[in-house]
Amino acid sequence: MTNSNVTLVEVGPRDGFQPIVPFIPTQEKIRLLQSLHAAGLRRIEATAFVSDRAVPQMADATEILAAASRLPGLDVQVLVPNVKYYERAVEAGARHVAFVISVSEAHSRNNVRRSPDEAAAEYERLIETIDPGVALRLNVATAFDCPFDGPVAAQTTLALLDRLAPLRPDVEIALCDTTGRVTPDRVASLFDTAMARYGTGPSWVFHGHDTYGLGVANVLAAYAAGVRVFDASFGGLGGCPFAPGATGNVATEDVVWTLERMGIDTGIDLEPLLAAAAEAAVLPGANAGGRVRQALEGARCAGVGLAG
Amino acid sequence: MTNSNVTLVEVGPRDGFQPIVPFIPTQEKIRLLQSLHAAGLRRIEATAFVSDRAVPQMADATEILAAASRLPGLDVQVLVPNVKYYERAVEAGARHVAFVISVSEAHSRNNVRRSPDEAAAEYERLIETIDPGVALRLNVATAFDCPFDGPVAAQTTLALLDRLAPLRPDVEIALCDTTGRVTPDRVASLFDTAMARYGTGPSWVFHGHDTYGLGVANVLAAYAAGVRVFDASFGGLGGCPFAPGATGNVATEDVVWTLERMGIDTGIDLEPLLAAAAEAAVLPGANAGGRVRQALEGARCAGVGLAG
Repeated sequence: MTNSNVTLVEVGPRDGFQPIVPFIPTQEKIRLLQSLHAAGLRRIEATAFVSDRAVPQMADATEILAAASRLPGLDVQVLVPNVKYYERAVEAGARHVAFVISVSEAHSRNNVRRSPDEAAAEYERLIETIDPGVALRLNVATAFDCPFDGPVAAQTTLALLDRLAPLRPDVEIALCDTTGRVTPDRVASLFDTAMARYGTGPSWVFHGHDTYGLGVANVLAAYAAGVRVFDASFGGLGGCPFAPGATGNVATEDVVWTLERMGIDTGIDLEPLLAAAAEAAVLPGANAGGRVRQALEGARCAGVGLAG
Repeated sequence: MTNSNVTLVEVGPRDGFQPIVPFIPTQEKIRLLQSLHAAGLRRIEATAFVSDRAVPQMADATEILAAASRLPGLDVQVLVPNVKYYERAVEAGARHVAFVISVSEAHSRNNVRRSPDEAAAEYERLIETIDPGVALRLNVATAFDCPFDGPVAAQTTLALLDRLAPLRPDVEIALCDTTGRVTPDRVASLFDTAMARYGTGPSWVFHGHDTYGLGVANVLAAYAAGVRVFDASFGGLGGCPFAPGATGNVATEDVVWTLERMGIDTGIDLEPLLAAAAEAAVLPGANAGGRVRQALEGARCAGVGLAG
């Protein structure tokens, strides 16, 4: 019987903080990590080991990783763009790393300045290098849709997975809706196909965005397909700072609120999570999203005469 | 074979305008109705015949109905709270009326100052009175959840339907998620049960709110259950003016964007609909919602380094 409970991977401290331009003080980041841990999150993507010049917000990766690693029972994941930064991450104590490959050529070049083929070759080198005791996650960006090229055909994503999945059978693979433009039918269909094709070797994650309001709908579609691990970002952080309203990752609190209301256990306490999300939303430069926080912050409104 | 296409009922001019406090000039309302019609909407809830004192925004119901009735091929629906206002609506030319009954006692008393039993008795009187040529829609408010009492048990909603559905077998019944707090599993379940219990006599509508971000997810759940008519409001109008962020009805443009992307025909052109929604969003006193409009208005943002 499939376990009906789910695990949320809080990616706000990395994916959410990264596009924020003003540097968030390291102690503030650590305090928020502690709040997320206290709310019950047991998997957090805490930071990225990456060029300070490319992503200045992640310049304190070593301190953040050290602080996160002290939180009891927390599985701390860090993002690395290549073998060089993998080695730095492991020197700093990382025991769980995530590597990103974009399916689409245009996104791959824009995001990491290399083609998907070059990224796949780097992934192969990473697998040759990686300490057997370090857990590995593969983030497949633009698995459904590319900001430059539009919809990505399932066969294109599956062709990349055909190459990558066998390299490390126990890998965790996150299929990422980078743009928020995929619809639930396509989420369910790609996971159905991938899970049938690659069997129980890899474990599967859905990473979704809420830009077009389908964040939770897509999580539910992946859940229906059998996915039990979901990325989410507290406060819906991760939106583009240049596009107010075009918010980013699906909000952790929206996913928790919905799943718990459906009787699916997340292990997370909504109230302290909402408190952390409210703090995230007012970080200078943040472009917060999510709906549940705003709905609950708003005064109770029973509707004005003739409400339907 | 079930038709896979859907019909959207645009309720913004009634449900969306109603809570806006500053009076929207009648000519502005008529212009927006014309824009919605030009975008392809062929069913619109245009206004309500109701006490001017209770709902001052609807004081121009007669003029609005007359103007809407001149739009070619448009099925114009108006809300009436009782037989007295039904008669006024029909005198003014209404050929399609909607009547609301709340399942929950607390919402019913707050909304129309009568119990569900009293509202059901008024519905019976309406059915005795109604001209056979006038189409009837029954809006079942708080069919899933009440702003005062919380979740409404399916058996409570079904008990009310047991009394009401047989009274007029050809009625269109809208099950309304008044609070936006229902989850897709319960939407699907109640429609499954109701459609099996009452057969093909009534036709079914889902009326959802997006307050907690589940507006489109719930539309898709109702669609999967076989529902093909959906209420929606352009610009997501219908939010509570006292709760910024706590937006209201699911946005018509979000539903159109999603369904069309899934290959389901709505007959509506997104671009002119978005233009109308953008105008609605800046009406003085409006509390607009919806995600697609904001996402498309935002500059393109391909993500900042290492985007997932």
